[in-house]
Amino acid sequence: MARALADERHAMPVKIPTPGRILVLAAGSALLATQATAQTDPLPSWNDGPAKQAIVKFVGDVTKQGASTFVPPAERIAVFDNDGTLWSEQPIYFQVAFALEQVKALAPKHPEWQTQEPFKTLLAGDVKGALGQGDKAIFGIIGATHASLTTDEFTRSVTSWITTAKHPRSGRLYSEMVFQPMLEVMTYLRANGFKTFIVSGGGIEFMRPWVEKVYGIPPEQVVGSSGITKFEMRPTGPVLLKEPKIEFVDDGPGKPVGINRFIGRRPVLAFGNSDGDQQMLQWTAAGGGPRFMAIVHHTDGEREWAYDRTSHIGKLDKAWDEAVAKGWTVVDMKKDWKRIYPYEK
Amino acid sequence: MARALADERHAMPVKIPTPGRILVLAAGSALLATQATAQTDPLPSWNDGPAKQAIVKFVGDVTKQGASTFVPPAERIAVFDNDGTLWSEQPIYFQVAFALEQVKALAPKHPEWQTQEPFKTLLAGDVKGALGQGDKAIFGIIGATHASLTTDEFTRSVTSWITTAKHPRSGRLYSEMVFQPMLEVMTYLRANGFKTFIVSGGGIEFMRPWVEKVYGIPPEQVVGSSGITKFEMRPTGPVLLKEPKIEFVDDGPGKPVGINRFIGRRPVLAFGNSDGDQQMLQWTAAGGGPRFMAIVHHTDGEREWAYDRTSHIGKLDKAWDEAVAKGWTVVDMKKDWKRIYPYEK
Repeated sequence: MARALADERHAMPVKIPTPGRILVLAAGSALLATQATAQTDPLPSWNDGPAKQAIVKFVGDVTKQGASTFVPPAERIAVFDNDGTLWSEQPIYFQVAFALEQVKALAPKHPEWQTQEPFKTLLAGDVKGALGQGDKAIFGIIGATHASLTTDEFTRSVTSWITTAKHPRSGRLYSEMVFQPMLEVMTYLRANGFKTFIVSGGGIEFMRPWVEKVYGIPPEQVVGSSGITKFEMRPTGPVLLKEPKIEFVDDGPGKPVGINRFIGRRPVLAFGNSDGDQQMLQWTAAGGGPRFMAIVHHTDGEREWAYDRTSHIGKLDKAWDEAVAKGWTVVDMKKDWKRIYPYEK
Repeated sequence: MARALADERHAMPVKIPTPGRILVLAAGSALLATQATAQTDPLPSWNDGPAKQAIVKFVGDVTKQGASTFVPPAERIAVFDNDGTLWSEQPIYFQVAFALEQVKALAPKHPEWQTQEPFKTLLAGDVKGALGQGDKAIFGIIGATHASLTTDEFTRSVTSWITTAKHPRSGRLYSEMVFQPMLEVMTYLRANGFKTFIVSGGGIEFMRPWVEKVYGIPPEQVVGSSGITKFEMRPTGPVLLKEPKIEFVDDGPGKPVGINRFIGRRPVLAFGNSDGDQQMLQWTAAGGGPRFMAIVHHTDGEREWAYDRTSHIGKLDKAWDEAVAKGWTVVDMKKDWKRIYPYEK
């Protein structure tokens, strides 16, 4: 339906000349949906502040036939960071929570972990101590739990986790801790002919099994970090085997590289929340014609979390300064969002 | 329009109750196009043999609501090799012809090439001798001419070449030497809700500037070989710089890896023409539900070229044996195609 809606805007009003004529309507249900949309607020979870107004103005500009700001549908590429932009990322990145659970599940097969860091500390129950050993420790945990499986096996383990594991604070599934206002932005953009992509530092194969259902973004519109995979012909048929070697890190300066490699067009809209998104925002900003760059600022310690310049997770410092200096949109979660999660009424 | 057509199939016939009612038709023009398609042959350049019948049957099976063979639109992923499958590849891969022209253009800036192989032989006018030095020489030529440029500069040089350079035998633009029957297959698939992708050993950035116009495939649906690129902030703004290092070779066992990395779904249809496509065909064949695997066999030495088991370019040997053994479709270019190129009437 989103795809049909994408084209609706080009349609001209058509008089149906013959009474009672039976027509095969192209996406007939989309027609009704669009008529409804035109009368209702596409961003009901947003307070009517400058951020919401900027989004609505940008979409209006880009879709206005004949205007100098008009952007052809094929070029309406919108990119979204995931962790901290589309869902929460505290107290630890959700993918790390997944990896930690995998360590426990795999431990019986890895007796060497009992004496090897960071696994030893982790298996002793000290998550904070294990993660406190730094990025190398985190990569070690992710590498050990995300490799030496086929891609199909890995997909099954992600699917099992995402449909059962609960967040320690909310007690909700991790996939429920997505931001309702951002779901509305993506739906609104797609209804206006945009193609929405995720461009995340997270693992591409960790996201793909569930983002279509949760965000409406199909697997082929997900850009992320990845490990090497190898094709292997087994007696039962071909498999792709995940190896414990990093192929690509889609973060910081890697984000424009990932956008160029996977999408091959420069986005006109980009949403991020941390310094890891700065180059993606710069790359988006540097194109011609109308542009929209935005940062989600985590300011709500009650309903979500409040953190920025000094946070170990989702540090927002240089990108914030650049946003202020260049007039990019800074979303103040506390002020701009009526509702954070879909399950809040 | 193709996107609207993709959804048309789900629409139910709708009675327009009110005479003269003005409707905003979702993709109104698609409606007429679909009605026309239903009455005309979607594959007019194909002779009515087993290959054509197999394609039409597959599309019918996959799109039949309620049938056990029905495939949801989101999973209708079709992949096509490029060289030798969508356009010709003789007497040398067209991307190599591009690279050779670049060597001549860049030679004044590279005095060292006068004494360095394969450039020395090439600049002396002996193309065959230079390419005869093997794959390493070809990679050397492509590496030297495709790197140390920004991605924008490289796109401009490809665009300039593709709109001016002529094939030595036909005297036509290279982009005119595409296969009319394959254009029809891709249009037919898209009209039936498929998403069409290129999965080619050729350079991803060599294809993207022109495939949308020529094949109707947008840049984000192109999978290909690539070199490393680096993000660099210059005083004039950010650029992506192409480095002379190979990142990924999308050929042979690399094709399923590329499909997994870029698309993240297993195709239901794959078209290739050489042993470099064998693993892509195997990977496609190994999925559940209806599958369609096909090989274009170059059998027409008069209208195109005839080559297979012993060819240095587009060698078709093991993949052919497997196709015959497993009942994949083998397209006999001479027998199955009424017309090869769009410019033939």
